[in-house]
Amino acid sequence: MTKRVGILTSGGDCPGLNATIRGAAKALYNQFGANVEIIGIRNGYAGLIEGDWQEMKQSDFSGILTTGGTILGTQRTPFKLMKVIGEDKVDKVARMKDNYKKLKLDCLLCLGGNGTHKTANLLAQEGLNIIGLPKTIDNDIWGTDVTFGFHSAMNIATDVIDRIHTTASSHRRVMVIELMGNKAGWLTLYSGIAGGADIILIPELPYDIENVAAAIEKRNKNGRTFSILAVAEGAMDRQEAKMKKKERLAYRQEHGIKTATNRIAAQIEQMTGVETRVCVPGHMQRGGSPSAYDRVLATRFGTYAAKLVAEDRYGVAVAMVNNQVVDNPLAEIAGKSKLVPADCPMLEVARSMGVSLG
Amino acid sequence: MTKRVGILTSGGDCPGLNATIRGAAKALYNQFGANVEIIGIRNGYAGLIEGDWQEMKQSDFSGILTTGGTILGTQRTPFKLMKVIGEDKVDKVARMKDNYKKLKLDCLLCLGGNGTHKTANLLAQEGLNIIGLPKTIDNDIWGTDVTFGFHSAMNIATDVIDRIHTTASSHRRVMVIELMGNKAGWLTLYSGIAGGADIILIPELPYDIENVAAAIEKRNKNGRTFSILAVAEGAMDRQEAKMKKKERLAYRQEHGIKTATNRIAAQIEQMTGVETRVCVPGHMQRGGSPSAYDRVLATRFGTYAAKLVAEDRYGVAVAMVNNQVVDNPLAEIAGKSKLVPADCPMLEVARSMGVSLG
Amino acid sequence: MTKRVGILTSGGDCPGLNATIRGAAKALYNQFGANVEIIGIRNGYAGLIEGDWQEMKQSDFSGILTTGGTILGTQRTPFKLMKVIGEDKVDKVARMKDNYKKLKLDCLLCLGGNGTHKTANLLAQEGLNIIGLPKTIDNDIWGTDVTFGFHSAMNIATDVIDRIHTTASSHRRVMVIELMGNKAGWLTLYSGIAGGADIILIPELPYDIENVAAAIEKRNKNGRTFSILAVAEGAMDRQEAKMKKKERLAYRQEHGIKTATNRIAAQIEQMTGVETRVCVPGHMQRGGSPSAYDRVLATRFGTYAAKLVAEDRYGVAVAMVNNQVVDNPLAEIAGKSKLVPADCPMLEVARSMGVSLG
Amino acid sequence: MTKRVGILTSGGDCPGLNATIRGAAKALYNQFGANVEIIGIRNGYAGLIEGDWQEMKQSDFSGILTTGGTILGTQRTPFKLMKVIGEDKVDKVARMKDNYKKLKLDCLLCLGGNGTHKTANLLAQEGLNIIGLPKTIDNDIWGTDVTFGFHSAMNIATDVIDRIHTTASSHRRVMVIELMGNKAGWLTLYSGIAGGADIILIPELPYDIENVAAAIEKRNKNGRTFSILAVAEGAMDRQEAKMKKKERLAYRQEHGIKTATNRIAAQIEQMTGVETRVCVPGHMQRGGSPSAYDRVLATRFGTYAAKLVAEDRYGVAVAMVNNQVVDNPLAEIAGKSKLVPADCPMLEVARSMGVSLG
Repeated sequence: MTKRVGILTSGGDCPGLNATIRGAAKALYNQFGANVEIIGIRNGYAGLIEGDWQEMKQSDFSGILTTGGTILGTQRTPFKLMKVIGEDKVDKVARMKDNYKKLKLDCLLCLGGNGTHKTANLLAQEGLNIIGLPKTIDNDIWGTDVTFGFHSAMNIATDVIDRIHTTASSHRRVMVIELMGNKAGWLTLYSGIAGGADIILIPELPYDIENVAAAIEKRNKNGRTFSILAVAEGAMDRQEAKMKKKERLAYRQEHGIKTATNRIAAQIEQMTGVETRVCVPGHMQRGGSPSAYDRVLATRFGTYAAKLVAEDRYGVAVAMVNNQVVDNPLAEIAGKSKLVPADCPMLEVARSMGVSLG
Repeated sequence: MTKRVGILTSGGDCPGLNATIRGAAKALYNQFGANVEIIGIRNGYAGLIEGDWQEMKQSDFSGILTTGGTILGTQRTPFKLMKVIGEDKVDKVARMKDNYKKLKLDCLLCLGGNGTHKTANLLAQEGLNIIGLPKTIDNDIWGTDVTFGFHSAMNIATDVIDRIHTTASSHRRVMVIELMGNKAGWLTLYSGIAGGADIILIPELPYDIENVAAAIEKRNKNGRTFSILAVAEGAMDRQEAKMKKKERLAYRQEHGIKTATNRIAAQIEQMTGVETRVCVPGHMQRGGSPSAYDRVLATRFGTYAAKLVAEDRYGVAVAMVNNQVVDNPLAEIAGKSKLVPADCPMLEVARSMGVSLG
Repeated sequence: MTKRVGILTSGGDCPGLNATIRGAAKALYNQFGANVEIIGIRNGYAGLIEGDWQEMKQSDFSGILTTGGTILGTQRTPFKLMKVIGEDKVDKVARMKDNYKKLKLDCLLCLGGNGTHKTANLLAQEGLNIIGLPKTIDNDIWGTDVTFGFHSAMNIATDVIDRIHTTASSHRRVMVIELMGNKAGWLTLYSGIAGGADIILIPELPYDIENVAAAIEKRNKNGRTFSILAVAEGAMDRQEAKMKKKERLAYRQEHGIKTATNRIAAQIEQMTGVETRVCVPGHMQRGGSPSAYDRVLATRFGTYAAKLVAEDRYGVAVAMVNNQVVDNPLAEIAGKSKLVPADCPMLEVARSMGVSLG
Repeated sequence: MTKRVGILTSGGDCPGLNATIRGAAKALYNQFGANVEIIGIRNGYAGLIEGDWQEMKQSDFSGILTTGGTILGTQRTPFKLMKVIGEDKVDKVARMKDNYKKLKLDCLLCLGGNGTHKTANLLAQEGLNIIGLPKTIDNDIWGTDVTFGFHSAMNIATDVIDRIHTTASSHRRVMVIELMGNKAGWLTLYSGIAGGADIILIPELPYDIENVAAAIEKRNKNGRTFSILAVAEGAMDRQEAKMKKKERLAYRQEHGIKTATNRIAAQIEQMTGVETRVCVPGHMQRGGSPSAYDRVLATRFGTYAAKLVAEDRYGVAVAMVNNQVVDNPLAEIAGKSKLVPADCPMLEVARSMGVSLG
């Protein structure tokens, strides 16, 4: 009896998507031989809604372990906002269910982040056989110690900090580096420590600009004529942190603040008198070949997903807990987000290094 | 008889500064043995004005071939705008002359870009023994085929384009990448070709946004669902190019345009309907270890500078012409800038690759 | 009351040594302020025997997070074979004890691998206050999930496999890549999976050359005209595995076998008729800047060591277990080695990818 | 009228082959539009002899700017030694001529090194329309300042030296690094200077082991406890250099010398008493993505080849002379090899840096 397995990738692209696709596919072929058919759904859930897919051949998965991006295409549009062109009102979930049936899928692997898992859970509740795989450079998926993409992004972000270091020290400047991570501080915290940042600001620990300026001035007094700030794109100051989301957005719009970085730089320059520059590496943090760590992780996750298929175990998301690949019920993790907790040992490590956390 | 040789680095920092310092120093020690004393002037011309310097030891030049930045410090403040703190009005040139005499220098090596060479020429005209060394990631120094720093920056910029490629293709997006280069297009042109950019916009060839949008739509028609734009920080459209500098600055301030990139992205999104994102790698283009090419180049330049010292030939800038290290009179290159000429063969190469130049 | 803390690095050098030294030092200064004195012992235990050491200043630990090697120097000579020049017979342990007392050390941090920990335990049993820190690219230290250096080496080894891939596929060749790891297969197993090797041979799973040749021929039949073998330096065939160590060494000497790699290549070429080449990246696997992962790990380990000092807890080795930094009694781990167990999930992952394990 | 253009890649693989193929193809499509047909010959001249080829589509050239190896396959077998399986005696040149006619080619682009150009010239003398393109990491093709692949290999070799540096300095060792380059010293000379090697040995300057040992001992006396030797695979000592080729091969076989490296290491260890290790990075020097420099160079070369086709100019090899792409008659360069001349300015540069050249 043949298994028909669908795969889609959804949300922002991320190193390791292709490695995970390959991992799952190779493990499925290894398990089922000629008795498995893999169907690639294009551009995430949009492809499932619109019926955009292709039968994959074994050779499609060859040579993609090392490539960035996703051979299936992806889409960032939040599920709620997805529109079907040319149609007034579409029951997107029903449409996906229909296409799943039409394709005669036995199950569907959904590679993505928090948004992807939420929709995956929706489909699981509708009775489809769904397996989630934790993809994101933000490392903010509930129930897993680590997501694929995170370590690749950490390498890039650390390399950026390393490069900026030489500029900062030669010019006796303050350099503010804005790093990705959405609402979580993982990427900034880890690459900040790896890059030897002097000040690390993450969303989970709203900063006080007075503390930031004081940390810079303390460094100056100790003869360190430059400072490196690693600032998460989601960082905010204590005042903003007290606001409700809507209020904060209004406040930011009013003051022309897109992310905290530019404001921080202006404030520092004004408060300390030290020349301050902002660097926003942006999308390059999610591009390129996955790191060795992520290739191994992606391959492990893909292998585990194939095992779940073999055991007909669905409605779960693959995860890594204490170095073991396990799975969590989709229903338990959907809609949640894993932030840096106040007792995260990495915060203590940062403080021990003399890093100011704002 | 002992030679006393001063060295300073001025302008924006750049990979290869330390390699050049080391190259000159090692070649001087090799030439003169114990009969040379090297004096490091700190923070560019500011250090010469303020008398901030140190006697260097042979070991100071060890281990710096591979390091980014400059062990001597540098400063970007244009010479005209340099202020001596606590003093009303200072004849900066006279002050530098005084310190040069006080230090009993036989000559002074000035590592820097166009601004640095202009000031170097000033000092040479005052009778000081000056040698200029062509540093800049912009590659815009008159009289030399190549400057150190350019190839290192090209490697980084190309790596950024490579990474953005995977994001662009996975998301079917237009990605606009802003690259450095000041008023010259060298860095964008070379790394755009190396990274396979679809559209390359440089200051020397003002663009027409209609052409840019048409190029993207042509790609879309041919089934290429994404496009990469490499845009120089100095790029401008044809309308702006006709304005005088002041007028253009006023126009940009009025329209809130800092560089062309954001406006281009907005226009493209509006004209083509394709999701468009901007990426500004910024200062990381000038940081980190110099590339192998730049280490060799820097070492050659440094060696040649030592030879000039041995021959007491001053008032010149070191250069590379047709793979030979040569020197040009400072008076001939000061105040000039080397832009991409209309008949640059690289433009034809780009066009042959189907690249739109706007 | 002042703490005097000694630090030494012993055994083969490894990325992350300086990051760990810096981590411990910064955390100690953070904890004790002016009340800590750090003494750097040079060249491992040899420096402790010979009294070769220096008082460290806070600035000695600045800028070393990213540098390869060790600022303290190290030595690979096994403790048993260490000779004190000019002296007939020396009680090395007594000598180290003496110098420890002379230096008035409160404790000694020993960064190293299995050999280092064995000697560390010796010193602990003599009543010295010792803390071990797990350094090795081999990842073979008992009681810790991971050692610093391992992930950096994995990145390099994976990069080598990536590069060899393009040569192998262009030339339709078998490429045999010899990777480090001493008697353990961790480095080869992880980088083999990360690099997409087709055959992975590790010491823990002695190979049968018939199986290896069969795997290559199976690939050829399936149209894959090239194959990549990742072979651990400690790999051996089943016949050798049955021999005792002495017998095996004699056998290897007789047949001119240094590592298995060259013999494997010759056998494959002879059995399959496919052109086969060997690549031995060697020492470069342990050189250069530590990876972001290793910098974070090293910093965590260093921080923990400082905490142990603050709590006067000695006779232990720092370790990572289930993502938590913990410590093990030196007496429990000394003399042991952590090999790839038969039920290691990574072996199953490799097999799922169609990798032959010999 | 349609142009039918054949392309083949021959000799050892090399970064930039695909970039050159793409450069030529894109420029041809740009020039001729639908009026060009490109035929890919597989595995070098072997494919032309055996009639192994494929019609290429425009999309075949997409996405290969950055990939290592060659999409057409290649073969290192010298033309003289090529055997056609199953046939006793074949006039290989006649066979290639036949297939060229059968394929109705208007011309044939041959990407390769010295051997490739020799055969290319043979075909040109037979009346075929041939264009050679200078590929090799060895940089030893007559009539061109630079070949594509050279700078990519230099980057890798320099990175290897950088990594070995940290090991050497931590262990106070002599490290002997064997670099590629065939009979030419270009790669070793350039990467040796870029990596800061202390001793550089190239085939063009046969070494005297006494000088090498003396250089190491001089360093030791000056407190430098380690030394890095960059040794070309073709290096030989002065005694060997005086022998004729056959004599030398016999001598090497008798003494079990494959390359000079191992012998040098043994001699140094014996003469200086310093622990000495050999590192042979090997094939990884020719693998992986081409550097930015090589991508630009390859694209320029490919563009120029298309121009030659448009002008029906054949029997030439593309070259770079004084930063201009030009062409040389195949007849003039075939059978020649460009070695490092005694007056090469890079030798003077190396000596100025205190490098011993043996």
